[in-house]
Amino acid sequence: MRHARREQVFWGWGEPGAGPSLPESARTWLREALGVDGGVVSPPVALEDVRLGEPSLPEALRRALEDVVGATWVRDDRETRVLRAAGKSYLDLLALRAGDAHDAPDAVVVPGSAAEVLAVLQACNEWAVAVVPFGGGTSVVGGVAPERGGCAAVVSLDLGRLDAVCSVDERSLLARVQPGLRLPEADHALAAHGLTLGHLPQSYEWATVGGCVATRSAGQASTGFGRIDDHVVAVRLATPLGELATPEVPASAAGPSLRELVVGSEGAFGVLTEVTLQVRPLPAARRYEGWFVHAFNEGCELLRELAQAGAAPDVARLSDEPETAMTLALSGRHGVKASVAGAVQSARGHAESALLILGWEDATEAVVRRRRAEAARHLRQAGAMALGRSAGEAWLAGRFSGPHLRDDLLDRGVLVETLETAATWDRLDRVLRDVRTALGRLGGRVLCHVSHVYTTGASLYFTVLAAQDADDPAGQWRAAKTAATEAILAAGGTLTHHHAVGRDHAPWLTAEDGALGLGVLRAVKDRLDPAGIMNPGKLLPG
Amino acid sequence: MRHARREQVFWGWGEPGAGPSLPESARTWLREALGVDGGVVSPPVALEDVRLGEPSLPEALRRALEDVVGATWVRDDRETRVLRAAGKSYLDLLALRAGDAHDAPDAVVVPGSAAEVLAVLQACNEWAVAVVPFGGGTSVVGGVAPERGGCAAVVSLDLGRLDAVCSVDERSLLARVQPGLRLPEADHALAAHGLTLGHLPQSYEWATVGGCVATRSAGQASTGFGRIDDHVVAVRLATPLGELATPEVPASAAGPSLRELVVGSEGAFGVLTEVTLQVRPLPAARRYEGWFVHAFNEGCELLRELAQAGAAPDVARLSDEPETAMTLALSGRHGVKASVAGAVQSARGHAESALLILGWEDATEAVVRRRRAEAARHLRQAGAMALGRSAGEAWLAGRFSGPHLRDDLLDRGVLVETLETAATWDRLDRVLRDVRTALGRLGGRVLCHVSHVYTTGASLYFTVLAAQDADDPAGQWRAAKTAATEAILAAGGTLTHHHAVGRDHAPWLTAEDGALGLGVLRAVKDRLDPAGIMNPGKLLPG
Repeated sequence: MRHARREQVFWGWGEPGAGPSLPESARTWLREALGVDGGVVSPPVALEDVRLGEPSLPEALRRALEDVVGATWVRDDRETRVLRAAGKSYLDLLALRAGDAHDAPDAVVVPGSAAEVLAVLQACNEWAVAVVPFGGGTSVVGGVAPERGGCAAVVSLDLGRLDAVCSVDERSLLARVQPGLRLPEADHALAAHGLTLGHLPQSYEWATVGGCVATRSAGQASTGFGRIDDHVVAVRLATPLGELATPEVPASAAGPSLRELVVGSEGAFGVLTEVTLQVRPLPAARRYEGWFVHAFNEGCELLRELAQAGAAPDVARLSDEPETAMTLALSGRHGVKASVAGAVQSARGHAESALLILGWEDATEAVVRRRRAEAARHLRQAGAMALGRSAGEAWLAGRFSGPHLRDDLLDRGVLVETLETAATWDRLDRVLRDVRTALGRLGGRVLCHVSHVYTTGASLYFTVLAAQDADDPAGQWRAAKTAATEAILAAGGTLTHHHAVGRDHAPWLTAEDGALGLGVLRAVKDRLDPAGIMNPGKLLPG
Repeated sequence: MRHARREQVFWGWGEPGAGPSLPESARTWLREALGVDGGVVSPPVALEDVRLGEPSLPEALRRALEDVVGATWVRDDRETRVLRAAGKSYLDLLALRAGDAHDAPDAVVVPGSAAEVLAVLQACNEWAVAVVPFGGGTSVVGGVAPERGGCAAVVSLDLGRLDAVCSVDERSLLARVQPGLRLPEADHALAAHGLTLGHLPQSYEWATVGGCVATRSAGQASTGFGRIDDHVVAVRLATPLGELATPEVPASAAGPSLRELVVGSEGAFGVLTEVTLQVRPLPAARRYEGWFVHAFNEGCELLRELAQAGAAPDVARLSDEPETAMTLALSGRHGVKASVAGAVQSARGHAESALLILGWEDATEAVVRRRRAEAARHLRQAGAMALGRSAGEAWLAGRFSGPHLRDDLLDRGVLVETLETAATWDRLDRVLRDVRTALGRLGGRVLCHVSHVYTTGASLYFTVLAAQDADDPAGQWRAAKTAATEAILAAGGTLTHHHAVGRDHAPWLTAEDGALGLGVLRAVKDRLDPAGIMNPGKLLPG
């Protein structure tokens, strides 16, 4: 790609060598917990060894697309196609690491304006060629897989050139931005106005604003600052049949919300070309710290109490006992372990305890102090033990590390997957129990944390690690994913709290929305995308 | 109606004699401000003088409906039909006061369960007979007008028997309720659990939960407690083609929000049969008080500052100079005037000032005190003058009076209408100016207040009073409504902030949502209501 965007490695996360590696202590843990040796057993293939089909874009469409965006921005070289062949789901990485990119897009088109996006969609609609919008490419549910659906070819629509901040309204705290803007770039541009979006998913370094909005993303501070959908004020969506735009107003009673139909539509109705977001002043003060609570379920009750008292911190992250144990086992010299080692040893009652990371970011030190004091009062009354700031700072330092470590685990033949849901407080215990049981059948370790707290309930985020079935790793994953998803839905959790539907959850959307609800979504799609070219196989079950 | 629900008078607001009357001082004000004499010139006709067409429900459908709900609950007597002939819009009242109920429903059907609602819709769908859901009947935009659309007959679907609280989940702060539950009844039932919905539109005494959800209602305390749409967690909607239900989860990334498509759908897609709402603990402390700010635009800036500092009160209501003057002129011995008379006289700088009512309701006196102190600091810095609690208590005492006084004004030949919008802070001035200009052409008085404050903007609520054009009062209203609505939309306001679309705003929904957006809403309607029987003429333009 000739435009200057940084690119991730095709087989994993981030730029080569950019992220942290598994600490030496992990090898022991892997052997003891998962029974794997810990040595590298399946490294990724080299780019030149990746298997690709011949690109098959109709020549007339290619010319039409070149007329729209310029010949420079219609590409089908090997590297470009491989880089747009998949997102970052476990299945995606399994395939690319093994050199399988047979379903890479036939071409990658990089429009330079909203008008060009509309024209590209119209051309592809005419030729019935599938279009897969591509932002940061960080989907972990197959959201950018270049599926053809019933179409003869597929193009990846790269939004990398649409990365402008169009306007900032400092009085109304609104920013209108293009979809390809990456989150750090958004925060950088807003900082010049004393503002921030402050939306911090684990994919922060690569995710785009458009991708977050299209997938109803939640950031690590969403307990305090709200999910991305809480921030979206207005959208512009290019569809094969024209543009749909919603008004920039603070609130409205003018009928059903079209905005909420576009948010979360995952490219299946069209392509976001502009988003107006509520932003906030840059916080001048922050405090992060760790606590131990006696048990995960006690910690959940505490978080419920804080949320319902209006006293929840901006970041609230509670690990269950197995995740806490692993965090301590794997954290290095400067990690959580070091910071809490003394505390742990001096508090036998917390030996099997659950780690709670709390964070506040607000306008002044005084406000942070007041909010922190109120939460601390609740925590102490419940017998929680303060671990101090270093545990919080250690978490902050590693907050974006997870996907990097996954690459190391894949090298070592480990099945590693994360899945997440949310449920009302009343149903949380059952969801937790049933998902643990379902994933426990893999014979590895199931870890869980709460990372988002609401008045009415909370999210649950599961990490599962197990020895990979070398003969059929995809089949092994599918069986586990199916069991976990069915457990979630049967227990009253949502299909996904912030990973979106994509390809991997699509078969279960009917269970979430019902047959008539699905019929409504299909009617909307038929109205906007009658030829079915938009991101086939994602969101709506086939 | 034989079921025990209280009923409003057919020609106006509330039960006979229940509300306050215009004070004696109003007569002078009406003469000076509007040039009307102030005597009763057009009282409403008696029930027996109302003109009605013959009911024309197909006999076979009537039998089918009786099979579903029982013969008792299919009615077409004069009183029942007249009571369901209209809502409480200015046009509705003009017609009914003059004895015109020619478009009264052919029958009123009163189902007793969600299953009965589904069966009624299926039967009406088969006979292509229109169905108009009727909750509290308080719509001021023609939302319950029994229009036939292309159908041969129309039934009013009275939800009065569906008034149960189905379940309360005290841990998750959730209440599942039926749609016909009136707001005071909801709060009464929840109070037994130490909870409240606390949704307080001016129509509180009569409005139903289902009606509020179907119209995206906002209550007087929505600045603090949120609009009704902020409280809806899940819905069940009966449609002619079956039931659409959304999951009871605190948050989700599972695609577009069907819930937000149902909320605000105004009966055009189907009938709400159950709603799960987030509720909150009954506040133990409250404080209401009045302030004077030097000018309305200064007050708006103050409210913006409070909202963006996270320091907004739960109720924030700022009157412009004309509304402040009228409030003082009309308030009686115990009203705002008495409470502020001394203050006004001792503060010449505020002679032309704007009245600000603020209210806090929270868990403890200490929290209310802290929040109030923070807001008061902002207010004093801006030179605002505290008027004390009695002004706040006076506002509280009269908070539901407006619609009662309207009846008195209609008796006296006064055009009285309210309309509302919301805009971003950046656009508020222009909306205000342009709507004042548009309504000023009526030659009466245009009053305005802000009643809902958001981070990104605020609502504007206009009251217009003028001498009625006795020859063509409806035409006079239509011209003013058209001018005001077009001014709002051109200035970047929303078509409606909390009155909904109904019949009166439907012609402008395309301006709000765009042609493609309207196409999407129509596609949804076609999928759920292919025969077009659901609330014809409302929401979607004809």
